[in-house]
Amino acid sequence: MFDKSVYINRRKQLIDKMSGGLVLILGNEEAPANYPSNTYKFRQDSSFLYFFGLNMPGFAGLMDADSGEVCLYGNDVDMDDIIWMGPQPSVKDLAASVGVTCSAPFCKLAEALKEAISQGRKIHFLPPYRYHNMLLLEDLLGIHHSLIKNYSSLELIKAVVALRSVKEACEIEQINLACNIGYEMHVAAMKHALPGQKEQYIAGLIEGIAASYGSLVSFPVILSQNGETLHNHDHSKTLTVGRMMLTDAGAENNMNYCSDFTRTVPVGGRFDQRQKDVYNIVLACNNKAMEIARPGVTYQYVHLEVCKVLAQGLKDLGLMKGDVNAAVAAGAHALFMPHGLGHMMGLDVHDMEDLGQIYVGYDDETRPINQFGTSSLRMGRKLQPGFVVTDEPGCYFIPALIDQWREQGLHKEFLVYDKIETYKDFGGIRLEDDILITENGCKCMGDHRAPITVEEVENTING
Amino acid sequence: MFDKSVYINRRKQLIDKMSGGLVLILGNEEAPANYPSNTYKFRQDSSFLYFFGLNMPGFAGLMDADSGEVCLYGNDVDMDDIIWMGPQPSVKDLAASVGVTCSAPFCKLAEALKEAISQGRKIHFLPPYRYHNMLLLEDLLGIHHSLIKNYSSLELIKAVVALRSVKEACEIEQINLACNIGYEMHVAAMKHALPGQKEQYIAGLIEGIAASYGSLVSFPVILSQNGETLHNHDHSKTLTVGRMMLTDAGAENNMNYCSDFTRTVPVGGRFDQRQKDVYNIVLACNNKAMEIARPGVTYQYVHLEVCKVLAQGLKDLGLMKGDVNAAVAAGAHALFMPHGLGHMMGLDVHDMEDLGQIYVGYDDETRPINQFGTSSLRMGRKLQPGFVVTDEPGCYFIPALIDQWREQGLHKEFLVYDKIETYKDFGGIRLEDDILITENGCKCMGDHRAPITVEEVENTING
Repeated sequence: MFDKSVYINRRKQLIDKMSGGLVLILGNEEAPANYPSNTYKFRQDSSFLYFFGLNMPGFAGLMDADSGEVCLYGNDVDMDDIIWMGPQPSVKDLAASVGVTCSAPFCKLAEALKEAISQGRKIHFLPPYRYHNMLLLEDLLGIHHSLIKNYSSLELIKAVVALRSVKEACEIEQINLACNIGYEMHVAAMKHALPGQKEQYIAGLIEGIAASYGSLVSFPVILSQNGETLHNHDHSKTLTVGRMMLTDAGAENNMNYCSDFTRTVPVGGRFDQRQKDVYNIVLACNNKAMEIARPGVTYQYVHLEVCKVLAQGLKDLGLMKGDVNAAVAAGAHALFMPHGLGHMMGLDVHDMEDLGQIYVGYDDETRPINQFGTSSLRMGRKLQPGFVVTDEPGCYFIPALIDQWREQGLHKEFLVYDKIETYKDFGGIRLEDDILITENGCKCMGDHRAPITVEEVENTING
Repeated sequence: MFDKSVYINRRKQLIDKMSGGLVLILGNEEAPANYPSNTYKFRQDSSFLYFFGLNMPGFAGLMDADSGEVCLYGNDVDMDDIIWMGPQPSVKDLAASVGVTCSAPFCKLAEALKEAISQGRKIHFLPPYRYHNMLLLEDLLGIHHSLIKNYSSLELIKAVVALRSVKEACEIEQINLACNIGYEMHVAAMKHALPGQKEQYIAGLIEGIAASYGSLVSFPVILSQNGETLHNHDHSKTLTVGRMMLTDAGAENNMNYCSDFTRTVPVGGRFDQRQKDVYNIVLACNNKAMEIARPGVTYQYVHLEVCKVLAQGLKDLGLMKGDVNAAVAAGAHALFMPHGLGHMMGLDVHDMEDLGQIYVGYDDETRPINQFGTSSLRMGRKLQPGFVVTDEPGCYFIPALIDQWREQGLHKEFLVYDKIETYKDFGGIRLEDDILITENGCKCMGDHRAPITVEEVENTING
């Protein structure tokens, strides 16, 4: 945990932003996998971690935005718990460790809320994403679970997003540590990118590294020869020469801060010419984003500039044609990159996605673009110092999508379909780094950037 | 997946056991960790796997126990899914792969159930343990989530337990594969049981091995110098000489069958005399269970015989006194072993625990013993060929429990408290194997038994 002053300060800032009422921040419960007591590794709610720091199930925090009072609700353990789980600090001591002086058994929370409801006070809560918390909110507030999200507080969402978007120095340090674990994971994966190796073996290896040095992977590992499938969690293939292995994976460190890198490497350690050509285009896209991302520009602008680099590169290769700016404006490039350039990152790998992407990635000034590909851009708004975002351009040849677009005659003026056909066995490339927006520009996070040039990658694999 | 005949046969047997009505088997959904789309590694419901074999979210199976008709409900993917997840087989093809000829979109399930309800037909379902399925059942059946478990079908529970308890040859083969992964995990852990090594590092390493060769760990890894805490998921300590490291961990192989072994090893590779004395008592307990477990005897009997070996050993060491049989009958040994000898194992590491331990581990003939320690015995009933159970005696010195018992003067006639006090810094030892009940006795599962004698363990650590 951070020093308790960090949590005291965050809660004070939150209360200052709120017009009044009660702010309820629910922690997470254990999540059963295949029977009640066999649970997944515990993952605390990120906003609860942010304001209350305690990384264990069974807690909720309540802040009175009128009086400034804060109370932590949770239950003390008994002898049976001690036998099975070991001695545990009291709820009072846990509360004190994060600067909260009031604590009470969990059942008292219902009473406090019932009283507030009867007084007509507003109870602000965030949209639940755990089914358990939907049921809990139904029981606490008397609102049916099917409608509970509609009652979540936009005022609270906006206040939390405003705070969590700008990372504090102590948070940047933690993200950097998570990036260092991510570096280890990706270098290990590269060294095993050899013919005959099983995707599952390598995926397991890097999951193990994440667990050895941190608490979890920051999301389920994507590791596949079929890089053209964007979120490929199938690890059943054996690596073969001539293919590339795409690895999109990150760590969550022990403080639950995340990293998220993608590398695409040639099985056996040598890119062929066709691979190298496309690879260098994607690398130029990644570098372009780092070159232009800075406070005051929107990430939507950065995304579109990167798409132009992609389109220009593909035009040079004979896969696209016509005016590059017009092609990107029309969305023709999205055949190759049907996703956005990146997303916010922090305590969540898609930071605050549970609060609503539209509030995290956009604002009144920057609105989403409703066009295939760019509509998937999670982060579009103006950059500020302290934002951490991913920079993850890609280029994919998705046979089913190519067939569909060709059949529909989409963007024929920009796409050289006959040539594109010959790339249907290519797969896909994505190159992703995590960047911190600084006062004057941005910087790549982690003590070292994972190997990324053709030469660095080939040297890493060939040891 | 197994051949479709396996699933056809299981469903036929289940339908034959049922008196009539509809049998609804829900699959699991994705489980969000920290926002809706960031999910834990998918774990299918074990009964759904058993009867329908499909290891992916979004399915339910419905069997008509009167007509014998079976239908699989699930939704086909669209182009957006293909871009993100790759091409997927149709629900019709998936159903056919497990021998089901009828399939329909998921929304049709509600219609089928509504019709059955209006006809007054009984709808049998198993007790839900995932909050998502509680909500789904509330929506499908109109029964409030707080009461939904009360409406689950005892007839169906008993029929499923009867089938799943006796493992088929193809299942035994899979459990054996999971045990082989478990062997790798435990040998790797032993080799790293060196002073200065971090518990978290080793825990991560063996989680990685589980993921490299299987789908998951079969439960969260227990790995600690504080072996006296039975389910210790705290991995924050650094190993020191003079302590022992207890590792309770298992794998789930790619077919979701489990293993579950525990080993306790001296940090640095040499037991001291006091450790060796207690270790050899626990080993004798483990061996005793394997010696006497056979069809026709109850596992409750085996548990109690093992407790006598423990009590006799502790008496020989001067920690207990008086008549050993009387001490065990009184429950005095439970100060040292406050848990049961073992549990059923199969698709779940505590097999079918979601269906109710009382139906899995007990029957009309063998009832639970309501005494501290033995009341935690999950599996008590008469053994049959094809049962797979764990054999996991332990001996722990739990300071808080020792203090409590001494203060209350419990079992003073059997416990030498002054001597026991001197063991408060000892920690705990547990030694666990997985055993298959055969026609004439039992056998240890896995191609090789993980190192277990003092000599084998010391040799493994010292390489």
